[in-house]
Amino acid sequence: MTRSAARTRVVIIGGGFGGLNAARALARPGLEVLLIDRTNHHLFQPLLYQVATTSLAPSDVTAPIRWVLRKEKEVTTLLGTVERIDRAARAIRVVGEGDPIPYDYLIVAPGTRHSYFGRSDWEKWAPGLKSVEDARRIRKRFLLAFERAEWEDDPKARQALLTYVVVGGGPTGVELAGVLPEMCKVAFRPDFRRIDTATVRVILLEGGPRILPAFPESLSRRAQRDLERLGVEVRTNAIVTDIDEHGVSIGDEHIESESVFWAAGNQASPLIATLATPVDRMGRAEVTPALHLPDDPRVFVIGDAAAATSTDGREVPAVAPAATQMARRAAENILAQVEGRAMQPFRYVNKGDLAVIGRHKAVASFFDGKLRIAGHLAWFTWLLVHVMFLVGFRNRLSVLMQWAYNYLFFERGVRLITETEDASMSRHPARTGETGEFEVPRTA
Amino acid sequence: MTRSAARTRVVIIGGGFGGLNAARALARPGLEVLLIDRTNHHLFQPLLYQVATTSLAPSDVTAPIRWVLRKEKEVTTLLGTVERIDRAARAIRVVGEGDPIPYDYLIVAPGTRHSYFGRSDWEKWAPGLKSVEDARRIRKRFLLAFERAEWEDDPKARQALLTYVVVGGGPTGVELAGVLPEMCKVAFRPDFRRIDTATVRVILLEGGPRILPAFPESLSRRAQRDLERLGVEVRTNAIVTDIDEHGVSIGDEHIESESVFWAAGNQASPLIATLATPVDRMGRAEVTPALHLPDDPRVFVIGDAAAATSTDGREVPAVAPAATQMARRAAENILAQVEGRAMQPFRYVNKGDLAVIGRHKAVASFFDGKLRIAGHLAWFTWLLVHVMFLVGFRNRLSVLMQWAYNYLFFERGVRLITETEDASMSRHPARTGETGEFEVPRTA
Repeated sequence: MTRSAARTRVVIIGGGFGGLNAARALARPGLEVLLIDRTNHHLFQPLLYQVATTSLAPSDVTAPIRWVLRKEKEVTTLLGTVERIDRAARAIRVVGEGDPIPYDYLIVAPGTRHSYFGRSDWEKWAPGLKSVEDARRIRKRFLLAFERAEWEDDPKARQALLTYVVVGGGPTGVELAGVLPEMCKVAFRPDFRRIDTATVRVILLEGGPRILPAFPESLSRRAQRDLERLGVEVRTNAIVTDIDEHGVSIGDEHIESESVFWAAGNQASPLIATLATPVDRMGRAEVTPALHLPDDPRVFVIGDAAAATSTDGREVPAVAPAATQMARRAAENILAQVEGRAMQPFRYVNKGDLAVIGRHKAVASFFDGKLRIAGHLAWFTWLLVHVMFLVGFRNRLSVLMQWAYNYLFFERGVRLITETEDASMSRHPARTGETGEFEVPRTA
Repeated sequence: MTRSAARTRVVIIGGGFGGLNAARALARPGLEVLLIDRTNHHLFQPLLYQVATTSLAPSDVTAPIRWVLRKEKEVTTLLGTVERIDRAARAIRVVGEGDPIPYDYLIVAPGTRHSYFGRSDWEKWAPGLKSVEDARRIRKRFLLAFERAEWEDDPKARQALLTYVVVGGGPTGVELAGVLPEMCKVAFRPDFRRIDTATVRVILLEGGPRILPAFPESLSRRAQRDLERLGVEVRTNAIVTDIDEHGVSIGDEHIESESVFWAAGNQASPLIATLATPVDRMGRAEVTPALHLPDDPRVFVIGDAAAATSTDGREVPAVAPAATQMARRAAENILAQVEGRAMQPFRYVNKGDLAVIGRHKAVASFFDGKLRIAGHLAWFTWLLVHVMFLVGFRNRLSVLMQWAYNYLFFERGVRLITETEDASMSRHPARTGETGEFEVPRTA
């Protein structure tokens, strides 16, 4: 990767909300910006659960990163997996690339993966939802359970196939659980001859005393009531003690299920560990108020992988608006250093919290919970906000159309069961002799 | 699979144009129809090349089989891989299913796979285009070549990455080759910083003396001229002698390319071999004029896997309208047997041949070539016919919208690079301890 000596180079790792917004803010003459990501697409994670539940196609919630940045001519997008950050050499190492890539400034925005609280063996029975592959895997498991139930003659085995357990009562868990009953009871029912899809059980397990703990307590109660009306069994204070191929254990109790989904915990990308910097218990890098590492003003960490505190003294939450705001502050602080100005501390502005539960059901909290709404109005607000922030005109149109179709016909369009393997992408495919397919190097 | 003693059972293997239309024609009281397919979706193969070339999403050209047949209450859809047909026992064997599934009548419509003319080792370097997985694999290879070229400093290696070779000058090969230049030269160009995607080479290789050999000669010439105007190098009488990781050999000549696509030959599904019946050199079952096996009026073979002759003495071509017409005739002949009437021979009615070449460019032949059209009118006819025959209202709307978007903005929306492995689906997933993923039993 040859470089221009005259220009200051900023390398950005990650094409999520943080990385993209940083690239946009830094695209100006005099700077050379390299954005590197393991995949070729930006993912609109807030709608990913709709891919997992057959409402949207993967291409509706993704946009090619290089297409998003096509007008930022100072930004070069590269597909590659960063292996290691070498702060002493001021360079990053990319899998399959001989030479390290030097930087003058670095923005690290690699996001998080699931945390199974030390029980990584649970992952194979309870997939989580972070990537397009994750969503396809959940969609497949979910659809296959119906297909297998249609063959099954034994009533007990059939009921295990028709029992869905969602672990984790945060927004993702609530969204996943809330959408399942309507789909099973209405959309899929006319398609089967031997099973009645309305006999499905959907169980939401939350370890704490209430679901949606980030919301005001009254909205948690409202969300639980709404879920129960939709047909979801909500169980709080339910600590999962084991997950295996037969289902979930909560202490002595065992729930037979072939479809368990994980939405219970996150940990920062393992790339953060290569920074050799203090981290919190979720593996997130501790950053200064200006968002750089305590001992290195050239390296910024933003988004879900950063443990940051806002100027108002509160912890910055792991949500898309926070990543976007951090990106702008980090970019501005790099420009300040380049131009010899003083850096400014980060202040997070919370514009509100939204969680959707199901058809016509959502909860929203604004102004620190001073304004709370639920039901139709919250649901419509949720729809509006999510379409508005979706990247790309094509995606917005396509999502609106599919939602209209789903809403009007109670049907689900994207019910494709396909590939068996999943992997993130790298640009350095090592062709394997056996299959002719690409083998993918991974950092984690 | 328990069965009702009173009802005659027809088993249909395959959910393509043949299988679906047979199921619809047989859905009537007194009959029990079982349709079994390896995947959960019907695939609209005529538009599959648009998935491979990032214009459409997989869900646009597929529809869940059980959703398509949701109103045919006599039809039960099952996801499963048929391993073997046991004509002596009048039963089929399904992978992972202990008991054989008995039939009174059987319609075999499993389609074809690629033929590499005895060189199956070429498949890994030159993927073909039959399934959704094939299309995703081609799309990925095609997009990855650009990504790798953006990193590549060596001009020769870079040119090999930017050279696409399509082997086979039938409709699929012409469609694939025709769409590539515009995409590379217009849609992708603003997204790259280090390569100029307009320097791409697209080469179409045809072994015979002209492309589109099933069309009248004047249309073949027109198609070649149109392709050349779009920027495709068309080479006829070009017999491929070798394909490896570095490219394609035509005798002593070697074309360096990392992206070779195969559209040159077909052979019937290996399931046909288990029928123990005479086959032609493409492995297709020879059938009587009534479309059943010569020695077995209970077993019908239809679609691309049948070697059938129309009452006018012509060979029935391997196209969707032929499969649809054969399905109706086979279903009618089964009903004739059940009701004690005489079976009727199959007559293929050719309503016309269409091939699209690129933007505003297509060729069409009607009434045995007596009416020939090309250019705008043929292109518009092609669009109309393909949207009209697409299964499902949602798909039609979505495809129309995406085409409008592609047409107006010269952009391509579906540029997702994701999974590395491909496999067809089975309902009997053997969970592997290592990955927690499903292992797929396959017949071929």
